[in-house]
Amino acid sequence: FLGGQAQSHGSLLLKCKPREGLIIKTQSGATPLWQTSSLELWGPPREQPLFPEWQVPLRVTFALLAVTFIYTFLREVLQPYLVLNKNNFYKVPVLVMNKALPWTSITLLALVYLPGLLAAMLQLHRGTKYRRFPAWLAGWMSVRKQLGLLSFYLACLHALYSLCYPMRRSYRYKVLNWAYQQVQQKKEDAWVSEDVWRMEIYISLGIMTLGLLAVIAVASLPSISNSLSWREFTWIQRSLGYTALLLGTAHALVFGWSKWVDPAQYVWYTPPSFVLACLLPLSVLLVKAAMLPPCLARRLELIRRGWERPDRRTSLSPKEEPLLT
Amino acid sequence: FLGGQAQSHGSLLLKCKPREGLIIKTQSGATPLWQTSSLELWGPPREQPLFPEWQVPLRVTFALLAVTFIYTFLREVLQPYLVLNKNNFYKVPVLVMNKALPWTSITLLALVYLPGLLAAMLQLHRGTKYRRFPAWLAGWMSVRKQLGLLSFYLACLHALYSLCYPMRRSYRYKVLNWAYQQVQQKKEDAWVSEDVWRMEIYISLGIMTLGLLAVIAVASLPSISNSLSWREFTWIQRSLGYTALLLGTAHALVFGWSKWVDPAQYVWYTPPSFVLACLLPLSVLLVKAAMLPPCLARRLELIRRGWERPDRRTSLSPKEEPLLT
Amino acid sequence: FLGGQAQSHGSLLLKCKPREGLIIKTQSGATPLWQTSSLELWGPPREQPLFPEWQVPLRVTFALLAVTFIYTFLREVLQPYLVLNKNNFYKVPVLVMNKALPWTSITLLALVYLPGLLAAMLQLHRGTKYRRFPAWLAGWMSVRKQLGLLSFYLACLHALYSLCYPMRRSYRYKVLNWAYQQVQQKKEDAWVSEDVWRMEIYISLGIMTLGLLAVIAVASLPSISNSLSWREFTWIQRSLGYTALLLGTAHALVFGWSKWVDPAQYVWYTPPSFVLACLLPLSVLLVKAAMLPPCLARRLELIRRGWERPDRRTSLSPKEEPLLT
Repeated sequence: FLGGQAQSHGSLLLKCKPREGLIIKTQSGATPLWQTSSLELWGPPREQPLFPEWQVPLRVTFALLAVTFIYTFLREVLQPYLVLNKNNFYKVPVLVMNKALPWTSITLLALVYLPGLLAAMLQLHRGTKYRRFPAWLAGWMSVRKQLGLLSFYLACLHALYSLCYPMRRSYRYKVLNWAYQQVQQKKEDAWVSEDVWRMEIYISLGIMTLGLLAVIAVASLPSISNSLSWREFTWIQRSLGYTALLLGTAHALVFGWSKWVDPAQYVWYTPPSFVLACLLPLSVLLVKAAMLPPCLARRLELIRRGWERPDRRTSLSPKEEPLLT
Repeated sequence: FLGGQAQSHGSLLLKCKPREGLIIKTQSGATPLWQTSSLELWGPPREQPLFPEWQVPLRVTFALLAVTFIYTFLREVLQPYLVLNKNNFYKVPVLVMNKALPWTSITLLALVYLPGLLAAMLQLHRGTKYRRFPAWLAGWMSVRKQLGLLSFYLACLHALYSLCYPMRRSYRYKVLNWAYQQVQQKKEDAWVSEDVWRMEIYISLGIMTLGLLAVIAVASLPSISNSLSWREFTWIQRSLGYTALLLGTAHALVFGWSKWVDPAQYVWYTPPSFVLACLLPLSVLLVKAAMLPPCLARRLELIRRGWERPDRRTSLSPKEEPLLT
Repeated sequence: FLGGQAQSHGSLLLKCKPREGLIIKTQSGATPLWQTSSLELWGPPREQPLFPEWQVPLRVTFALLAVTFIYTFLREVLQPYLVLNKNNFYKVPVLVMNKALPWTSITLLALVYLPGLLAAMLQLHRGTKYRRFPAWLAGWMSVRKQLGLLSFYLACLHALYSLCYPMRRSYRYKVLNWAYQQVQQKKEDAWVSEDVWRMEIYISLGIMTLGLLAVIAVASLPSISNSLSWREFTWIQRSLGYTALLLGTAHALVFGWSKWVDPAQYVWYTPPSFVLACLLPLSVLLVKAAMLPPCLARRLELIRRGWERPDRRTSLSPKEEPLLT
């Protein structure tokens, strides 16, 4: 019995591949996809997981979205309601959402570049590259593409939500009320130069960040990335990616402007969203900057080319061998 | 002579394929595309149709766009002009256009999921899956991808048009006039809570729908869909697709809000656009919901796995055979 | 020793290809990309250029962006500052940027279609197609795809910048000040019919242009363009492309409206941006229109099918031969 079981399992794996190929070909033709599903009887007994390489990144994304959403909700809706007796619940569908989205987006983008820096630090510390990374670091590095695409996706949604702001009724009524007040106060000019500058720079930086992320996302399409050389692919992911992270962080910092030191922003003794959102990207950028001086950069380059610190050199490692295992 | 003619026609078909390959390769190089066009002398005598699988979906799209555009034009521009003597013709390039676009978009999205439901009902009625679908249904099912992509395309244009609203001069002048009136009426607060909520939810649902449709559209790029397993591909098309249809319909219903029962909306005894736009998607969603209870879902699952109702079972059908014909 | 060196260099070129394949495959797996970089020791001694076919188009784009940015800055920021003592520097990040972007975009789009027209004129003048184009023209024609994609990219950024206009503080304060003035002047209606029409048509044309360019850009993705026939590919690039150029030029002309003849627009005796931006696209469209009458079109068609003007016919050119060289 066990032999038969093993045999049928063996043939399952063989039948599994042609089945998928067959169905995918059929599907593009006139024959409907699921007319062929009687083949499921011969299919694998346990279903394969959907998008295995997306599971962890998606969970991280949803967890971050939930945390940032709740944090913003507590600060911007619940606190005014409980303390000031002000009904701000209309802010939930758009304004609270649109604080959770960019916060999660820039955190994910920082998480794309953090493992590479950790790996570099580990290599510098070890003085060799011929030792495996810990499993969590290797796993993290293998989902950087997914994290980056999710970051771009949330950045697009953030852009759409932001562009909708002046379309909302709440914005229209606010503008009308401001106009009414301005007339009542006989204030001829509403212009606040600082606010104008803050917003113009903020918008410009945001669009540039999104534009760069779009290039990186397009370059990760299989049909595009296959046509790129290895150097071109890493150049896009590294140079454009770090520039996008830099611009995105600047975008968040300009949004904050001088509110960092404004006590009114610290309701319930909690810092505003943009302060927390900036911490991780800023750290990543600072560590990256710390690695740029030639003394460190050259040593890292040597290690990556195969050089080993004398005390770390093992007698039994010809340089290419780890690649063959 | 006729023999020679037939022979040259025969070789035409053979030469046709390498010709295309040759030109496509040449085109990416420095040699301009049409320098090679002398080969057209040897080309097929009759031209192949452009985008054969897009012809019907495009015709359906343009027909729907024309009907919805004219319907909106009659109700929102011609009726006020004839009855109220009000010149609303400025609405044609943006506002009328932007009612035809989402209406057509959601109709196309419903048309993506309708044939699958019809096929399921037919299978349940027949009690077997070993009979061919009528030609119109098979043809319809084979253009679902095109209908879905056109729906996404129009949804993107709808988003762009909507985002442009507050940028228009007409909107600016309206806001200025409202501000003027508010000052004249000494109304301190313009806030209409219901309108605020309607718009915030409307916008949030719209962006989520567009975001889901974008994922489905990207997953239908050849280089992406080829890298997906059959289960992953159908999961995206089915789960995300129905969710997008649900959110899109909710988006339209929230846009309508309570105008369903507002007699002022029924000019010339015609219902407003969003009422008509919702009918088909709502029907599709209701039929889908009616198929979800286990009694029906399990029977359908069995039929699709090859089970047949006893009275329908034919003696001459081993289960895989229809696939080989 | 030298012989060994030469030998290893010779094998370098052979090893170069599999190395790239190896790394690209490794990269998608759990093994991090640069763990394999010890192979760089065996890599080619000189680095290959990054994106060789994008170098010239990118340089053209940045040069055009710089020129148009400076031109707009001088006219719209520096002139008011020096002559009228008016501080418009807040316009630099968004408004000046958003004049340079569309100007460069439409210029690049015109540069996509100009070389084809020059080539056609050259062929008509020569009376044959069996002579090579000058190197600059052949080179220009080979980067049309890159120019077109850059044009689309800048058009997307232009759309994003434009959609941000009403979101800016500067716009809000202006609207509030206008509302204040309207109340002061007791002007009940701010409506300027001409401005309303100008903007509605302007926006509608802009979105249609962007929509067409998006179709062309998607069709140039490798995995899509490979699935298109030669006729389909050229139809998209030619028909949709010229339509997009036509709509884009109309978009710019409608933006200008009657400002062509408004002396106030000609500060420092320089024409406004849209006048200069329209010149090249208009010329391209006019030349294209001049080629449409049957007398010219039929002759060009004949030449492209291999016909030669009698005085140009060379005795030693059977028609297919140039293709084989």
